[in-house]
Amino acid sequence: MLDKIEHIGIAVKNAAISKELFSKLFNTPPYKEEEVVSEGVKTIFFQTGPNKIELLEASNPESPIAKFIEKRGEGIHHIAFAVENIEAEIERLKQEGFQFIQEVPKDGADNKRIVFLHPKSTNGVLIELCQEKS
Amino acid sequence: MLDKIEHIGIAVKNAAISKELFSKLFNTPPYKEEEVVSEGVKTIFFQTGPNKIELLEASNPESPIAKFIEKRGEGIHHIAFAVENIEAEIERLKQEGFQFIQEVPKDGADNKRIVFLHPKSTNGVLIELCQEKS
Repeated sequence: MLDKIEHIGIAVKNAAISKELFSKLFNTPPYKEEEVVSEGVKTIFFQTGPNKIELLEASNPESPIAKFIEKRGEGIHHIAFAVENIEAEIERLKQEGFQFIQEVPKDGADNKRIVFLHPKSTNGVLIELCQEKS
Repeated sequence: MLDKIEHIGIAVKNAAISKELFSKLFNTPPYKEEEVVSEGVKTIFFQTGPNKIELLEASNPESPIAKFIEKRGEGIHHIAFAVENIEAEIERLKQEGFQFIQEVPKDGADNKRIVFLHPKSTNGVLIELCQEKS
């Protein structure tokens, strides 16, 4: 089952500027900053109630975030839903006809195992499933 | 203060097709369907944990949703954050330098008073503040 919106990922050009902007918006500083080298991103996390906002800055020109910004500009990149059992959810959704970018969960930021559905099967929305690592 | 992500609005071309798609994704039907004539939208709401997903279909060609899809295609349209006192939050954010599309709250779907920040002041993200009507 898909549970809460774990986080929304927002692609930004300049993490320092956006960090200040979102700190003002939420009236509180981020609780975590983390680089995910394998994904080519620097991340900055804000808590908002039970949910999080993840700012994503490309850490190299080949990063998916660099390509996203080049094509669409800054803005919302993906929605991540919390799941309790990521393998079971991948299996259920495959049987419903959804496509995945890759079908095997990988390590993401913030102590998660993650997987992405292909946006062509979800109305142009890039959807991540994420499970907290035990 | 901005609290939880109240909902994420997703612009879709065909509400009937997307309703089926997201019902499969969430493994549950929507809890509400509502037309907001003043905004030119048909809305379909899904609950996911403490959050909601709002599908938005244009109900006329002049609808902001029709224009959004024409320009950017289907996809995430806005993020709405719950607030307890919308007027106080508008005032706080104005003082922080944020711009609003309109500064006076208006009636939205799902029994809310709503206001939108201008995306040029929020990294290209269209942000809604919404307060539950008492």
